[in-house]
Amino acid sequence: MDLWNVDKIPFVGTENPAEGLGFHYYDPERVVAGKKMKDWLRFAVAYWHTFNAQLNDNFGDPTAIRPWHKNTYSKPLDASLALVDYAFEFMSKLGVEYFCFHDRNVAPEGDTLRETDKNLDAVIDKIEENMKATGIKLLWNTCDTFTDKRFVRGASTAPNRHIFEYVAGQQRKSLEIAKRLGAENYVFWGGREGWESLWNTDVKREQDHMAEWFRMCHEYAEKIGLDAQFLIEPKPQEPTTHQYDWDVAAALNFIKTYDLDFFRMNIEGNHANLARHSYGEEVRTAVDADKLGSLDANQGNKFVGWDMDEFPVDLYDTTQVMWEVMRAGSIGPKGGLNFDAKPRRTSFDPEDLFRSHIAGMDSYAAGLLVADKMHQDHFIENLLDDRYASWNTPEGKAIEEHKETLESLESRVLDMTEEQLVAGNKSDHLESVMATINNYMIDALREA
Amino acid sequence: MDLWNVDKIPFVGTENPAEGLGFHYYDPERVVAGKKMKDWLRFAVAYWHTFNAQLNDNFGDPTAIRPWHKNTYSKPLDASLALVDYAFEFMSKLGVEYFCFHDRNVAPEGDTLRETDKNLDAVIDKIEENMKATGIKLLWNTCDTFTDKRFVRGASTAPNRHIFEYVAGQQRKSLEIAKRLGAENYVFWGGREGWESLWNTDVKREQDHMAEWFRMCHEYAEKIGLDAQFLIEPKPQEPTTHQYDWDVAAALNFIKTYDLDFFRMNIEGNHANLARHSYGEEVRTAVDADKLGSLDANQGNKFVGWDMDEFPVDLYDTTQVMWEVMRAGSIGPKGGLNFDAKPRRTSFDPEDLFRSHIAGMDSYAAGLLVADKMHQDHFIENLLDDRYASWNTPEGKAIEEHKETLESLESRVLDMTEEQLVAGNKSDHLESVMATINNYMIDALREA
Amino acid sequence: MDLWNVDKIPFVGTENPAEGLGFHYYDPERVVAGKKMKDWLRFAVAYWHTFNAQLNDNFGDPTAIRPWHKNTYSKPLDASLALVDYAFEFMSKLGVEYFCFHDRNVAPEGDTLRETDKNLDAVIDKIEENMKATGIKLLWNTCDTFTDKRFVRGASTAPNRHIFEYVAGQQRKSLEIAKRLGAENYVFWGGREGWESLWNTDVKREQDHMAEWFRMCHEYAEKIGLDAQFLIEPKPQEPTTHQYDWDVAAALNFIKTYDLDFFRMNIEGNHANLARHSYGEEVRTAVDADKLGSLDANQGNKFVGWDMDEFPVDLYDTTQVMWEVMRAGSIGPKGGLNFDAKPRRTSFDPEDLFRSHIAGMDSYAAGLLVADKMHQDHFIENLLDDRYASWNTPEGKAIEEHKETLESLESRVLDMTEEQLVAGNKSDHLESVMATINNYMIDALREA
Amino acid sequence: MDLWNVDKIPFVGTENPAEGLGFHYYDPERVVAGKKMKDWLRFAVAYWHTFNAQLNDNFGDPTAIRPWHKNTYSKPLDASLALVDYAFEFMSKLGVEYFCFHDRNVAPEGDTLRETDKNLDAVIDKIEENMKATGIKLLWNTCDTFTDKRFVRGASTAPNRHIFEYVAGQQRKSLEIAKRLGAENYVFWGGREGWESLWNTDVKREQDHMAEWFRMCHEYAEKIGLDAQFLIEPKPQEPTTHQYDWDVAAALNFIKTYDLDFFRMNIEGNHANLARHSYGEEVRTAVDADKLGSLDANQGNKFVGWDMDEFPVDLYDTTQVMWEVMRAGSIGPKGGLNFDAKPRRTSFDPEDLFRSHIAGMDSYAAGLLVADKMHQDHFIENLLDDRYASWNTPEGKAIEEHKETLESLESRVLDMTEEQLVAGNKSDHLESVMATINNYMIDALREA
Repeated sequence: MDLWNVDKIPFVGTENPAEGLGFHYYDPERVVAGKKMKDWLRFAVAYWHTFNAQLNDNFGDPTAIRPWHKNTYSKPLDASLALVDYAFEFMSKLGVEYFCFHDRNVAPEGDTLRETDKNLDAVIDKIEENMKATGIKLLWNTCDTFTDKRFVRGASTAPNRHIFEYVAGQQRKSLEIAKRLGAENYVFWGGREGWESLWNTDVKREQDHMAEWFRMCHEYAEKIGLDAQFLIEPKPQEPTTHQYDWDVAAALNFIKTYDLDFFRMNIEGNHANLARHSYGEEVRTAVDADKLGSLDANQGNKFVGWDMDEFPVDLYDTTQVMWEVMRAGSIGPKGGLNFDAKPRRTSFDPEDLFRSHIAGMDSYAAGLLVADKMHQDHFIENLLDDRYASWNTPEGKAIEEHKETLESLESRVLDMTEEQLVAGNKSDHLESVMATINNYMIDALREA
Repeated sequence: MDLWNVDKIPFVGTENPAEGLGFHYYDPERVVAGKKMKDWLRFAVAYWHTFNAQLNDNFGDPTAIRPWHKNTYSKPLDASLALVDYAFEFMSKLGVEYFCFHDRNVAPEGDTLRETDKNLDAVIDKIEENMKATGIKLLWNTCDTFTDKRFVRGASTAPNRHIFEYVAGQQRKSLEIAKRLGAENYVFWGGREGWESLWNTDVKREQDHMAEWFRMCHEYAEKIGLDAQFLIEPKPQEPTTHQYDWDVAAALNFIKTYDLDFFRMNIEGNHANLARHSYGEEVRTAVDADKLGSLDANQGNKFVGWDMDEFPVDLYDTTQVMWEVMRAGSIGPKGGLNFDAKPRRTSFDPEDLFRSHIAGMDSYAAGLLVADKMHQDHFIENLLDDRYASWNTPEGKAIEEHKETLESLESRVLDMTEEQLVAGNKSDHLESVMATINNYMIDALREA
Repeated sequence: MDLWNVDKIPFVGTENPAEGLGFHYYDPERVVAGKKMKDWLRFAVAYWHTFNAQLNDNFGDPTAIRPWHKNTYSKPLDASLALVDYAFEFMSKLGVEYFCFHDRNVAPEGDTLRETDKNLDAVIDKIEENMKATGIKLLWNTCDTFTDKRFVRGASTAPNRHIFEYVAGQQRKSLEIAKRLGAENYVFWGGREGWESLWNTDVKREQDHMAEWFRMCHEYAEKIGLDAQFLIEPKPQEPTTHQYDWDVAAALNFIKTYDLDFFRMNIEGNHANLARHSYGEEVRTAVDADKLGSLDANQGNKFVGWDMDEFPVDLYDTTQVMWEVMRAGSIGPKGGLNFDAKPRRTSFDPEDLFRSHIAGMDSYAAGLLVADKMHQDHFIENLLDDRYASWNTPEGKAIEEHKETLESLESRVLDMTEEQLVAGNKSDHLESVMATINNYMIDALREA
Repeated sequence: MDLWNVDKIPFVGTENPAEGLGFHYYDPERVVAGKKMKDWLRFAVAYWHTFNAQLNDNFGDPTAIRPWHKNTYSKPLDASLALVDYAFEFMSKLGVEYFCFHDRNVAPEGDTLRETDKNLDAVIDKIEENMKATGIKLLWNTCDTFTDKRFVRGASTAPNRHIFEYVAGQQRKSLEIAKRLGAENYVFWGGREGWESLWNTDVKREQDHMAEWFRMCHEYAEKIGLDAQFLIEPKPQEPTTHQYDWDVAAALNFIKTYDLDFFRMNIEGNHANLARHSYGEEVRTAVDADKLGSLDANQGNKFVGWDMDEFPVDLYDTTQVMWEVMRAGSIGPKGGLNFDAKPRRTSFDPEDLFRSHIAGMDSYAAGLLVADKMHQDHFIENLLDDRYASWNTPEGKAIEEHKETLESLESRVLDMTEEQLVAGNKSDHLESVMATINNYMIDALREA
């Protein structure tokens, strides 16, 4: 089968900087810090962006040229079935072992949920076959509870109760599919869960409903023996003016408020930026809370206020994210690196789907190599040891173990001069730290 | 005593829109929804902005002309003591019954903490006298743990343990003063608790230290019988690149993570905006979590990325905040409305201190009147009842009471057509809602 | 004919704040400052938002319910023709005397430009008839040179020269229509004129091409005797990462660079905000340059980074914009107030098209009344006279007339003390100014 | 003389990524594209940040430890004189051949302008001596017309005419010094030229005054034979809410409006970001207008809304800026790369002044090397040639030479099918372009 007219993408190394259809840094079997590159990164293709996206925007029509567009399918379901072949050939040629999908990307809706489920089953049959044939696995699936007009005022948070009931039914089917296909994670993104205006929204009650939905989902998963890791994907805004899962901290607060500890985070770079955080910062917040689940690796233009879903090519971001991942040991217990990204509207050729994934995969492979070099040298670890040294003492430990009081500590400093106090405030040499990271970047990749 | 050369500010009503030294809307004894205006609003003067601020900025020298500048005091402590008289006369003439202060605003530092405490005691003696003489009360006090160079790398989160010990001593004294002066609340603002760079920061350990600090403070308060409500004041950035108490949601997540449920929130308008939230939204988040503590009422320019601390004059903001306050019943259990605000640098006359407070007080009084009119008519309440009607049914309650499952709900919708489903999606008429709020604003204030 | 099932919208006054289908402030024949309200405001309906928009967004399907959706038209052109009747009945019932349209909203494309033009002619015939029958006039029309995939890399700035040629042809037809329908203005919005990446863009050459396009358009307009005012509509971003007409200043720089002085500005509120300007500020910039052309009156949420195109309901914005308009004497020589706005996606009923326009029209009528009251009292004028008084002197005039030098002025201040110098720096009392504007708002509208 | 206790900073190469006091990439005599590195870059030290800045911020006291702090000078002027020695030794050891200063940084004010000028002369004498002794040159000087309280409402745009007169006198002296010291450029930054509120500002009149000031300055420069290039430095906000020189486009519009063509631009990276532009974009705008004058090379955190003035370490920015500089042939006719940057407040050791400059110099040297490699390969040039190929034809030239009309072009496309039209819309492969830039970065620096 050769639907794409592209050869399997080879590793070509770094000799020639010029653009092309080969990996410069991503060498899947290369061992880095005791694990293969591919096992650190567990790249996944996002079905919706890569296969469904037509590259339209709010002001413009589709531009994408796709090999399957040359065929005319008599029924929507036939088109969906045909697309499965294109998808798996693409992933095989790219050398990506995981994929992710929304229920409504892969199969068309029918007139009722029952009919929609039937369509879905037909496509899932074919996906399952292809998974077996290729060895490609499901990183996660999810429900699309935002596109259809029925979700105009929310899905699990809809003021209209019937919508909640519909979401329950749609969700049940989707969890069943997760079980059937062996999904390693299951993602919830609440694009319509939030408000356009505080004035017409009962925020508390809507969040109660969202929490109850999550509880029901988790109980059903347990009932059917689905052990996929549940993930919340934070995003501050867009399409809704304010979304409840604003950022990692807001989502952590939500799961604590409602006792939903079974959740971890699926963190997207561009979403982080829209909440005025760097990607690394959101990942740090999750890792420190032991809540990193998976990555939706993409990027945006930091001067732009909407979700661009660009393929990630900023080596500072990829280095920082992979440094956190190496510190955590992995991208969550079962996570991977999904490209929630689409080529620019001006990169409309089918070949650009390969080119853009190569750009993203190489950038994360490079980030892994730089992070590894920094970890090998204990560059940051040594810096932190030195910076917090005064806490690594019996006196420091005593405070950390709650053995001191305001009064006991006060007695130590009451007669200290300012000079004595600030003696321990050593200069951070922060500009040298930043320059050294540049040096590591070049040093690690020169040898790649 | 007449230090200010200004008469007590009268209520003059709305006849003449022209600017002046009188209240147009704030009539302290007027009863609104069963409470006096002054008891709904509990206005407080911020000692630091009103009496200490010199109106310098990052690029410019002080411009403020203040009556006490004409005197030359031989020692810093004498200046601090003299200022107390100006402060209490100002508040009396303005008709504000509460004030707030940082320890380091009211008295100068000595060479050691012991000497600093001695200075502080001398000024507190005089403040206490003035409080008795005027009946003016302490809404809250706090520690300044951000100005001195000792806090350059954090206070409770400093890498240098001695700084933490110093903060403990400074804090103990400040809580003792809170007890002595009958503070109704006690505020923690962590302007240096955060990071300049993730690369040199052990975020988790720093947050552990901050939590331990809070625990020690709370235990000491219990020991001395201080029953002030503890408050965290969120701010995302400035002076630090990223602060741990980013917004209300982040602070709630923090207090849940570390089991610090004794905290409520002190919410500032301009801080909300810097985190890309409206003031009303942050207040809503706190009210819904039963965590509203107090208000630092100010505003910024929404196109400006630093803390402007303008006096609040936007009636949309004041209406929304007071609507939430009326819904909650009060500004937290013991909260008030502190003007964490300063006149613009070009409004440097002493009279502008009166003018700017009048502007802020009138704006919140007007907001209270508009919110009251809306509550009287049940405008928003009726709108919500109607919008969520399908949940106020036995079927809705059953879901809310966790009596349903994905499967039980699915059975209801499996054969519903899209038309049946979306029948309950009634149009929100949101543009009419917004226009009606304008109408309420005019309607409520025309009668004021 | 009663296609809309709504009565003509009456003026109902301000008795009842509750929402409804009547004007609270907009009383078209009422005379304000010597002109009828309707002549100050010259409201226009935006064909594309009001009649074409389906209320889809980047993450969701259409939600709009429209009366013409119940009909099934055999051909796209039939649907376009039928819509004309709905449009003119809507405008008549709303009481709006102007409209605006893009060529591609009103008629479908054919297989070639020739066929497209033919479709367009058919619809324009019907529009012309309706204009005659109703007296409704064309405020402006424009070309849609951004939706079709042919414009993916720009229109007049496309790297592919054939696209430029196509734009020329499309544009010629559109100017011909402007002439035929008596358009008072002609608008250019360059949504695709800009770059996704500087790396692949010859910015200078693209701007040369855009300028040449404008020159050709202007020459053709002169040739056919079209005396519509040409307008550029600035927008910083979206759909393109960076657009050449970033804001008013950038557009003024562009027309100066290329000697295109025949242009004025069509200024949109939400676009202003996306460039981090208030609407009033962009209008001020244009008025001061004698370049105000027309208004695309809408608003956005200032914490949101994409174009929301909300109907304008913020009375601070409407007051400030109308204050500038009254200062200028009118909205440009032939301008009007076009609602480049759409109801929220949750306000999907056809009735919401009336409700949202009423909200916008009332808000601008209210803004006009407040601005008028302020102008009547010379509130701002007096404030400015006082503030700049030291320039309204022979010495001030001499400087303004270029009769002084650095040396001549230096001699006056060389021995001045700081006290002498700053004596003229009077306090701005800015907080009182802002509070007084609130008072004017209430005062002016209480009498409305 | 060894005031700094630091050796001359050597070039150490890239062997060891670890931080340190040596250059990794900056090798001043190395020839790149026909010019020495030092001649491409013309680095300058900013006197105010490097020698005057105390590292205080809006919420905190100074933290800087500086070698001259250990001395106690009896008079401010003595301190200023002593500092000159530290400054020139620093620059010599760092190996920087240019510096920049504000008049009020280098010498203290007296009671009158005459006395201030006297102080200034004394310091300038010493600076001149040091310049001769070391060979270090003056890239530019400027007036500080923003710090003193006299400028609270503006300098050349002050409502108080005496302030304008004072500015004239201050300016005359400063231009005289520029002449005396052989300044290559002269910079104007209008930090107080703008508004806090539109309501109390006559924007047009203030801009008239600013333009008249510039005219007087230019005439005086001509009179005394000063041939320094005049430069405007744009900044959108801070300290003022809105500044007139918002961005490069606004400043270009200003100089065109007032016929001040003798100006070029001094472009700062962090200022660009505050206006929502990348540094590269602002440089591009200036280069294309033939208005690049000089660079104030620094950076900020793109999620932070105030001027951070960080030393530049982002290799994407430095590559893009140096690519533009190489395209232009130089940094303006007489420009250089001034570090308008300060170490973080936590990098308070004197040594950090060296470390931070090394970080910035290495980052720009690296950017130069990457840009050079890209230019050598004609990577971008070829990409553009290919992208705009259809314009490099007789038909394209005819359009560019204004030989065509809407009608002549229309005739070519009237019967073209969409397929024919879009045939020339070749995919931009933008993701590959971005990945290739990464490859160039590694490739160029691996060999460094």
